[in-house]
Amino acid sequence: MCSLPVPREPLRRVAVAGGTHGNEMSGVYLARQWLQAPGELQRPSFSTTPVLANPAAAAACRRYVDRDLNRTFTSAVLTARPHPDDPYEVTRARELNQLLGPKASGQAFDFILDLHNTTANVGTCLVLEAAHNVFALHLCRHLQLQSPEPPCRVFLYQLPREESYSVHSAGKNGMGLELGPQPQGVLRADLFTRMRALVAAALDFIQLFNQGTAFPAFEMEVYRKVGSVDFPRTEAGDLAGTVHPQLQDRDFEPLRPGAPIFRLFSGEDALYEGESTVYPVFINEAAYYEKGIAFFQTEKFTVSVPALPALAPSPAP
Amino acid sequence: MCSLPVPREPLRRVAVAGGTHGNEMSGVYLARQWLQAPGELQRPSFSTTPVLANPAAAAACRRYVDRDLNRTFTSAVLTARPHPDDPYEVTRARELNQLLGPKASGQAFDFILDLHNTTANVGTCLVLEAAHNVFALHLCRHLQLQSPEPPCRVFLYQLPREESYSVHSAGKNGMGLELGPQPQGVLRADLFTRMRALVAAALDFIQLFNQGTAFPAFEMEVYRKVGSVDFPRTEAGDLAGTVHPQLQDRDFEPLRPGAPIFRLFSGEDALYEGESTVYPVFINEAAYYEKGIAFFQTEKFTVSVPALPALAPSPAP
Repeated sequence: MCSLPVPREPLRRVAVAGGTHGNEMSGVYLARQWLQAPGELQRPSFSTTPVLANPAAAAACRRYVDRDLNRTFTSAVLTARPHPDDPYEVTRARELNQLLGPKASGQAFDFILDLHNTTANVGTCLVLEAAHNVFALHLCRHLQLQSPEPPCRVFLYQLPREESYSVHSAGKNGMGLELGPQPQGVLRADLFTRMRALVAAALDFIQLFNQGTAFPAFEMEVYRKVGSVDFPRTEAGDLAGTVHPQLQDRDFEPLRPGAPIFRLFSGEDALYEGESTVYPVFINEAAYYEKGIAFFQTEKFTVSVPALPALAPSPAP
Repeated sequence: MCSLPVPREPLRRVAVAGGTHGNEMSGVYLARQWLQAPGELQRPSFSTTPVLANPAAAAACRRYVDRDLNRTFTSAVLTARPHPDDPYEVTRARELNQLLGPKASGQAFDFILDLHNTTANVGTCLVLEAAHNVFALHLCRHLQLQSPEPPCRVFLYQLPREESYSVHSAGKNGMGLELGPQPQGVLRADLFTRMRALVAAALDFIQLFNQGTAFPAFEMEVYRKVGSVDFPRTEAGDLAGTVHPQLQDRDFEPLRPGAPIFRLFSGEDALYEGESTVYPVFINEAAYYEKGIAFFQTEKFTVSVPALPALAPSPAP
């Protein structure tokens, strides 16, 4: 396994972003809370910056104004010459890249945690680009041990040779935190409380690391995206059916060849025609209809994560 | 009980509207299906017209474009002089009023069934203006007997002396059908199938009535709106908390004085301070945040619904 280098220095600047999608309410309201009262995010060894990532979308309670902010952090967008007609989220991505990055530079924040909700029944889902991020996998392990219920799974979303495009990719390191199911525009107290506790545990982990704690090696189950499946559609592109009741709400459960995946409006069932078992995630996420995604297919495998060595002692910041 | 006159003639023109709110997907997709293939809606004794009520909002997958269409059917709006700057839904309400009404006229459709979803855990909820609508209460009873699971409850939404404003008020008679929970922008197969079956059962009831079937008197539990409760808010009007976990998803269950209704962001609980037990409904509906409604308070009571006499025999249409 090719690994990202683990930090040799304490993390000094951490950002927690909510409202990257303006209708995912747990993060929107946590960010607003923390902007008023940031004390809850502070730890002795580093500073934490709360960010309301897409304030215009949050004000409108929409996912985005012009385009999906969390698909906008590509080098092509971030380095293009600004233009007055740029979509709102292009301008906002450049602002955030100035604040939290620049992406891939030594000035970037050490870690960005980006908070999301989904209408899919994912429970707690930790979203990393790939399995080579040893530091983030240790953070995931810490969260799994702190919050065993509901299951806290690790989803690796980046396909091979795909450029990173997420808000958290502006930092030197980072990850997404997805809690679901929650409808767009609804703030559930249970998910709000859970997200708040998970963020606190993530910050506690960074504090432990900065203090010189070593973390032993472990093995971990992860789910890696291998593709996506669109809804059944008519020739004109309209929906011809939706997720089958036997698949709905079964995120991270095995889907075997021949099992039903869609119920067509005609009443017929469409079956999964793959050759091997996959583990669907983000099943029937509201925001993915327009992207042509009824669910992601993932494969489940076990990664051996090496130990995270203790930092050499250093003076407090 | 003051009663609406029951029909003395067969119902000849029925409309089934979906997509009055463009992100309530069960009705949006049923209406689109029926516009392609209306045969499923036809019965021997009357014609049924499928209507996609708010096509622009459905195309954008939003509740509305400019204003809530289902609050727009007031006489002030419908009779005002049209203006090029009218909000989209004002223009659309006048179009629908020409198609399905005019409201309160002899030319109006005999019955309008309007299809909705909610993010609240209401199960199947039949929405009537008031308890004096004997014909619609018999229709509700028929649906309850046809579809006992999940519970099929009757919600009377009109406050005393309040003018009707809903899409279905354009007809001589009508009601709303709310299925939940379903996130905005998500099409669940289970709710789609249930709504389709309920519409079929409603049309079957009208067919039975038109054929000369008499329906005996019965008693029925109904829930009548007596007010609404807003979310806790800051002085600036922002949310200061959300629905308490002990109230979330408990639509139609009793709420007793002193029970928690909100969890504040500070961690404290806010308690219900009313003097008597109420039955909250539409708890934490996404679309009601902007209306200042965390839930409706209802009172539960039993109505005695008189028999619906058989029509005198008449020639087939």
